[in-house]
Amino acid sequence: MSSTLGTLLKISTFGESHCKGVGAIVDGIPPRMTLREEDIQPQLDRRRPGQSIISTPRQEKDTVTILSGVENGVTLGTPIGLLVSNRDQRPGDYKEMNNVPRPSHADFTYEMKYGIRASSGGGRSSARETIGRVAAGAIAEKFLHETYGVDIISWVSAVGSLDATDMTGNNLTRQEVDQTDVRCPDKTVVEGMHEAIVSARDTGDSLGGVLTCICRNVPAGWGEPIFDKMEARLAHAMLSLPATKGFEIGAGFEGTKMKGSEHNDPFIKKESRLGTVTNHSGGIQGGITNGEPIIFRVAFKPPATIRKAQKTTGFEGQSVTLEAKGRHDPCVVPRAVPIVETMTALVLADLALRQQAKRTR
Amino acid sequence: MSSTLGTLLKISTFGESHCKGVGAIVDGIPPRMTLREEDIQPQLDRRRPGQSIISTPRQEKDTVTILSGVENGVTLGTPIGLLVSNRDQRPGDYKEMNNVPRPSHADFTYEMKYGIRASSGGGRSSARETIGRVAAGAIAEKFLHETYGVDIISWVSAVGSLDATDMTGNNLTRQEVDQTDVRCPDKTVVEGMHEAIVSARDTGDSLGGVLTCICRNVPAGWGEPIFDKMEARLAHAMLSLPATKGFEIGAGFEGTKMKGSEHNDPFIKKESRLGTVTNHSGGIQGGITNGEPIIFRVAFKPPATIRKAQKTTGFEGQSVTLEAKGRHDPCVVPRAVPIVETMTALVLADLALRQQAKRTR
Amino acid sequence: MSSTLGTLLKISTFGESHCKGVGAIVDGIPPRMTLREEDIQPQLDRRRPGQSIISTPRQEKDTVTILSGVENGVTLGTPIGLLVSNRDQRPGDYKEMNNVPRPSHADFTYEMKYGIRASSGGGRSSARETIGRVAAGAIAEKFLHETYGVDIISWVSAVGSLDATDMTGNNLTRQEVDQTDVRCPDKTVVEGMHEAIVSARDTGDSLGGVLTCICRNVPAGWGEPIFDKMEARLAHAMLSLPATKGFEIGAGFEGTKMKGSEHNDPFIKKESRLGTVTNHSGGIQGGITNGEPIIFRVAFKPPATIRKAQKTTGFEGQSVTLEAKGRHDPCVVPRAVPIVETMTALVLADLALRQQAKRTR
Amino acid sequence: MSSTLGTLLKISTFGESHCKGVGAIVDGIPPRMTLREEDIQPQLDRRRPGQSIISTPRQEKDTVTILSGVENGVTLGTPIGLLVSNRDQRPGDYKEMNNVPRPSHADFTYEMKYGIRASSGGGRSSARETIGRVAAGAIAEKFLHETYGVDIISWVSAVGSLDATDMTGNNLTRQEVDQTDVRCPDKTVVEGMHEAIVSARDTGDSLGGVLTCICRNVPAGWGEPIFDKMEARLAHAMLSLPATKGFEIGAGFEGTKMKGSEHNDPFIKKESRLGTVTNHSGGIQGGITNGEPIIFRVAFKPPATIRKAQKTTGFEGQSVTLEAKGRHDPCVVPRAVPIVETMTALVLADLALRQQAKRTR
Repeated sequence: MSSTLGTLLKISTFGESHCKGVGAIVDGIPPRMTLREEDIQPQLDRRRPGQSIISTPRQEKDTVTILSGVENGVTLGTPIGLLVSNRDQRPGDYKEMNNVPRPSHADFTYEMKYGIRASSGGGRSSARETIGRVAAGAIAEKFLHETYGVDIISWVSAVGSLDATDMTGNNLTRQEVDQTDVRCPDKTVVEGMHEAIVSARDTGDSLGGVLTCICRNVPAGWGEPIFDKMEARLAHAMLSLPATKGFEIGAGFEGTKMKGSEHNDPFIKKESRLGTVTNHSGGIQGGITNGEPIIFRVAFKPPATIRKAQKTTGFEGQSVTLEAKGRHDPCVVPRAVPIVETMTALVLADLALRQQAKRTR
Repeated sequence: MSSTLGTLLKISTFGESHCKGVGAIVDGIPPRMTLREEDIQPQLDRRRPGQSIISTPRQEKDTVTILSGVENGVTLGTPIGLLVSNRDQRPGDYKEMNNVPRPSHADFTYEMKYGIRASSGGGRSSARETIGRVAAGAIAEKFLHETYGVDIISWVSAVGSLDATDMTGNNLTRQEVDQTDVRCPDKTVVEGMHEAIVSARDTGDSLGGVLTCICRNVPAGWGEPIFDKMEARLAHAMLSLPATKGFEIGAGFEGTKMKGSEHNDPFIKKESRLGTVTNHSGGIQGGITNGEPIIFRVAFKPPATIRKAQKTTGFEGQSVTLEAKGRHDPCVVPRAVPIVETMTALVLADLALRQQAKRTR
Repeated sequence: MSSTLGTLLKISTFGESHCKGVGAIVDGIPPRMTLREEDIQPQLDRRRPGQSIISTPRQEKDTVTILSGVENGVTLGTPIGLLVSNRDQRPGDYKEMNNVPRPSHADFTYEMKYGIRASSGGGRSSARETIGRVAAGAIAEKFLHETYGVDIISWVSAVGSLDATDMTGNNLTRQEVDQTDVRCPDKTVVEGMHEAIVSARDTGDSLGGVLTCICRNVPAGWGEPIFDKMEARLAHAMLSLPATKGFEIGAGFEGTKMKGSEHNDPFIKKESRLGTVTNHSGGIQGGITNGEPIIFRVAFKPPATIRKAQKTTGFEGQSVTLEAKGRHDPCVVPRAVPIVETMTALVLADLALRQQAKRTR
Repeated sequence: MSSTLGTLLKISTFGESHCKGVGAIVDGIPPRMTLREEDIQPQLDRRRPGQSIISTPRQEKDTVTILSGVENGVTLGTPIGLLVSNRDQRPGDYKEMNNVPRPSHADFTYEMKYGIRASSGGGRSSARETIGRVAAGAIAEKFLHETYGVDIISWVSAVGSLDATDMTGNNLTRQEVDQTDVRCPDKTVVEGMHEAIVSARDTGDSLGGVLTCICRNVPAGWGEPIFDKMEARLAHAMLSLPATKGFEIGAGFEGTKMKGSEHNDPFIKKESRLGTVTNHSGGIQGGITNGEPIIFRVAFKPPATIRKAQKTTGFEGQSVTLEAKGRHDPCVVPRAVPIVETMTALVLADLALRQQAKRTR
């Protein structure tokens, strides 16, 4: 396993689907920042299941406790221990799948790698693993916002084959994103998305989708070439999330069809700084932020666990028709919004601190 | 800067466009492997400029010297020092760009970050930086092939708006890839790609493209969730390469439009192991290889440095029409083929060694 | 802060003296090892205060809970979350010291570094911080013993100016060490040591001491030159413990007075392996274990917090006579025995896994 | 192998005794610092063999070349490649030792670990390995001195059983240290030391010794508890050097015999800062510098390779009388002075940068 991330802002996480608790240690948050559990809980609430009819009906009340690193509501500069107890454990739901690895789930690969896997649920590959990240990242968001004014906003830009209109996100707020349970701020498609998810749920199937994420007010100069280039670290963070299959920044894959003369972002004077006319670069050049918004997209595959019957093969080579029981999300992208935001914050805050280290006194 | 990558197989690189030399230290290659400079040189030759009329006419004969770690053609288990001297230095070509940051190049961001940048060429953001990676990765390829039979083959699957037919790459060889200077093995489009690149060169413009990469014979079990998941480490490695803007694995972004029942890869008995019928997962589930080929795609933007006139703004806010001089690739994807392959090898070899560590005696 | 240690066996710890809890995440313990809280608790019990009249009268019942990584008493290969709740909190004891940094304590340096410090106790510099390490290291001990037969035994070899007779520790057991509360197995001096500690306690003063530690049955080949040489990693681990001021291995400082012809350990055939006649090297040559016992010594200074009046200066430059209140150990070395053992286990297990990674299949 | 050290100032080294070259990559030196080869060469000159009759007669003119990272005498912020070619190769000298591991040398352990070792000399365990560290550390020294005024001075405080008078080193200069070839500034013992080394050389034997090192003008606040405490990192760095067997800081092992009331360093007003009356702590409390000088001692064993006949056992179990040929130092401590200084600089500079990262803008 590799459960520690970051250089100066370092998080280590723990927890499986059905153990006593999940959480994280966050090491490197600067001292003297105000911090209370109420600062962390909102992103956990946005992440938790059971928020609407389009997510899994499991009711997990994921309440975070700060174990250390904070005294009288102020950070000490010491590691912040975070714990979310697992309350809603129903291991029985999964038992019948023990001899049959779910297609495109991690059952098979965990068995191959470790020679053992959690007897139920996804174990460490479960989406519950992301709780530690979200709690940790919520603290990083606070640091970034208070110190640099950075805002990180993600939204659902595609569900299945339904695409939202391309939008810049330059003025988008979380409140606007959260107006619908799909978390797509494009009102022309959000109803269709909702219906598609309900329909997938009703047929025991699942849907993929795409998230877009924008980071505003990021100063120029963050990112450490060559292996900690900003886009490399973001791609790494996003592809470490369950169910992600793609990452693109700025014009991304579409931009490969442009000519250099079209793709290049000419410079222009913007108040006290040099900005760019267009932003095909997505706010990053040569691995370093240029002061324009960072903008990227993340592809989430349709969840692997579905009720619909699947013909597959068991560990002993036996042919099986599998119909998953349990309570599963028909589409994870709405709940992935806070996960993408907080993971982004962890990457940005680490690279912000590294740039701070360059200042001579 | 962050110029070191890997946990057990660790590379550290150095070098700018116009310094005395570029290279790498490779630490962690197991002892007692045969290794000579001839094992490394071929991938450097495939990477170097001046191979054909569609790449930059700069003639860089990038000859590698093994400085340490090998005795009598056998590795000692000690760090392998690799040096490629810079011979073809023409700093004068770039001087006039000093007051004007090239649009979408790293000139501006390096200046913002470091308060200084190499007086000519791209400095550390130059493609010459990849020489150390390629030399190091060529050693990793040899280790993977000899120990596990792993083959890594990359090819050009798109140039600008020209897409190659989708191909699995299951039997593709490097010889087939290298039959054309575009390095696209699809004969129905390769001529059009060639012409498009020549046309971009002649008009002083540039083209982007996409590489596909397949890794065959990778055993099940490689990849360290959660932060060193195989796809996370691959995405990280690819987005650390100059000019990359996207990464997708398996069905990638297109796969987000599929339903779970379509996207899931059912298991099937394949000789002594459990394989999958389809491979929408791209050989990885839950961050761990499943024994099927790893397959992914990387988006390269069109090179930023173009001869064509661009209206932009200089460091002092002055309006400028910029026409870059110097010798530049109109399209980097053909030369990126060995870069993608060797970076992939570095990631796979590191995770292979980490899985080896799990064996009890 | 830097609260994460290790490459393949990685621990991250959290917790201050008076927060809700202290603990650790242990990532990298191989799967399929039996593990229960009862395997961890004994070393915590040996570490905890209040065991005898010579340690602090604080009664801390430090009970560990395994939060994750273990199912049905078997490790999953996933990170093991460990939590020990803080029960006995008496912050009030320390209040009067807030304006006066305790001489030779971390009060002053934490204030200089972080601009804030825990309002009471030592915060993160408190010995309670070691609980996470001990719990984590107890798991590493189990792995080492079961997989390689490694035994790690530490004992008190000096208290103040009283030295135990030099002993090899070749057959020493923990039971023998624990026969006295001083944890010195040399019966000729242990009573004197006990009396010295009681006397220091009664006069409100404190005593330092030395621990010796032996690691038996360590195979040849562990240690990763040059920066993860075994002795470098051990020295690092020991000097990271509170109150330590020195480390020496094998003949150590005394050995600098020997000639090479005296200090060198000649080889001799020992059963199936090549051993050495003497062991001035302390089981390590060139940073790598040679199959002989590892033996080293650690210096612990007298605890800084004493009841005895001290003339010193406060943060505002005021002259002060300080008489510490609270409950403090007059001598930490007896309680440091399990701390040294478990930290040693963390180092050895990490380097054992790294050597395992070298095996080709 | 593990040849990379540091978090923000990272060095990676390569090279064996008889390969083409040794050197290092230094990543993290801030941009815009003047740097030329002449800044690095002096410490290499102090380290090189053949400086006087008491060191090995090998004449190695270790001339450093800066390969990258510096342009027009100014650092770019990019990794600095450093190369020292190996000129004086005499592999034949060692051939007869191939079947007989030298007692207390790394021949045996390298063979056990890697199943192969350099055919001659010490390979990676040779003292030539330290060249990369010294060159890298000389740059770190320059950074520390120019940015913070830090001075690092080491000297020989013991040779064999001859101890120099205890001295604080508060005003000592390198010029004073270098006045004698022994590098002991205590004139009452230096002649005796010189004679002892000459006598050891003449009898084909070797001597150990102790270095003391002082770091002046280090600001309060450097060091990252708990695993990157300043003393832990220094102990790690020192014990990673060839032939070192012990480390102690401040009062060290002797301090364990003091009572707390004697050992504690009371605070006192010193100009604008709070200092301490005594310095038994060696400038560090709780792992963090307190503004007083850092002072520590390092034990070096007598070199293992001696001409004097030794009875030992070969790899095949045969009894052997070994008389080493070749040119070896009878006592390494004089040449170790610049090695200790530069390694210290690497540790301090890394922790200085980490403290800089804490500043909010």
